[in-house]
Amino acid sequence: MSVPTAAILVIGDEILSGKTEDQNARFLIRELRELGVALKRIHVVPDEIEDVAAAVRELSARFVHVFTSGGVGPTHDDVTLLGIARAFDVPIVRHPELAARLKTHFGVDADESHLRMADVPEGAELIAQPDTRWPMLAVRNVYILPGVPELFRKKFLAIRERFRVAPFFTRAFFTHEDEFDIAAALTAVAAAHPLVAIGSYPNFSTPDYRVKLTLESKDPAALEAAATALRAILSPEKLVRVE
Amino acid sequence: MSVPTAAILVIGDEILSGKTEDQNARFLIRELRELGVALKRIHVVPDEIEDVAAAVRELSARFVHVFTSGGVGPTHDDVTLLGIARAFDVPIVRHPELAARLKTHFGVDADESHLRMADVPEGAELIAQPDTRWPMLAVRNVYILPGVPELFRKKFLAIRERFRVAPFFTRAFFTHEDEFDIAAALTAVAAAHPLVAIGSYPNFSTPDYRVKLTLESKDPAALEAAATALRAILSPEKLVRVE
Repeated sequence: MSVPTAAILVIGDEILSGKTEDQNARFLIRELRELGVALKRIHVVPDEIEDVAAAVRELSARFVHVFTSGGVGPTHDDVTLLGIARAFDVPIVRHPELAARLKTHFGVDADESHLRMADVPEGAELIAQPDTRWPMLAVRNVYILPGVPELFRKKFLAIRERFRVAPFFTRAFFTHEDEFDIAAALTAVAAAHPLVAIGSYPNFSTPDYRVKLTLESKDPAALEAAATALRAILSPEKLVRVE
Repeated sequence: MSVPTAAILVIGDEILSGKTEDQNARFLIRELRELGVALKRIHVVPDEIEDVAAAVRELSARFVHVFTSGGVGPTHDDVTLLGIARAFDVPIVRHPELAARLKTHFGVDADESHLRMADVPEGAELIAQPDTRWPMLAVRNVYILPGVPELFRKKFLAIRERFRVAPFFTRAFFTHEDEFDIAAALTAVAAAHPLVAIGSYPNFSTPDYRVKLTLESKDPAALEAAATALRAILSPEKLVRVE
């Protein structure tokens, strides 16, 4: 069962400097999970063409979908399209359909500062978005989203269903076991159930449980088998609950 | 004026799958800023040795400080130390001082599952932390922090002052200007003031301003000069406030 992978590339000095708190990666993490897509990487890079280019080159070669956030406005610090063009070694060209839309929208006010918004990496695809003013841009497997959180969400929600695949199935065990006591048995369970991702997370902040053990798989039968094996290594009297 | 750079490497399937929301990168972003350190990269990677190794190799070669979050417990999904050892091509060795501390702490209960916590990349340095039970580990310029947010914060706060350098100076202009109208002049201001980072952030969610322009520098005189130049290109009647 092959699971499509994804990466998120957040572009913005404002995130790295703490001026703005990231909302877009946080939103997309939950969306991709719900869609059954396996998010494998998040990179946050500065507003520098070469940093964007290197990240796009790496992520786009390695993962099925890449989503960028930020750096797409008209000012000097908006370098995402330049970075993507450099990543794929293609020129920036004026897109006729985008230029026509900009002229229609801005009318007599449309000048070079507006029309520069139609300058995109050669080969960029426009994805029509019925409910939003502008189409979305994609270059190969890289979907280009704006940094403003309201627009980011709106634009992603308009295309989200094209990414949907089979869902993840999950189970979580909350127990008073000590991680040290179950580590070896847990390693054996994980090794015996390669289709199931097993995580172990200690909890020191509340008294209600000491460890949360999570199981996750695309295969519900494999999940059930791993859950049965996991239950067998845990003391019933230390088990708090299963979700 | 050379500014020390930093990268954050978050290791954890639980972050990428949305089971847990990242708190550690968010905390460290603000800490590093306050300390005057220039954060240049955040990577979030899965609990896979090769992914951790590749990220550590890249980030540690490129930035002055690297901080890792997560993957340091006793279970099969804790691969941070293995990843760091692979990144630097050094073996994992049992650290005598750590092993002695574990024996003291766990007493007669100390078995191999506990002593494995003393297995670290060769060359790892212990940083004493008076107020916490365990010393902190560092390998070269890589500081290894736990994923549990309470522990992450406590351990970082115990060493934070060693990273302090000259502060950043900042200014923010809030205006009703349209980004399109000021883009060209802003590019000229940014080009004329290379010691100052200038950002432009449109705001569509509230009516009180349309664009926030930020200035930032380690050099207060350069910041003042850029602020004066920026004020000169903005219509006074559209300026909402300066912070």
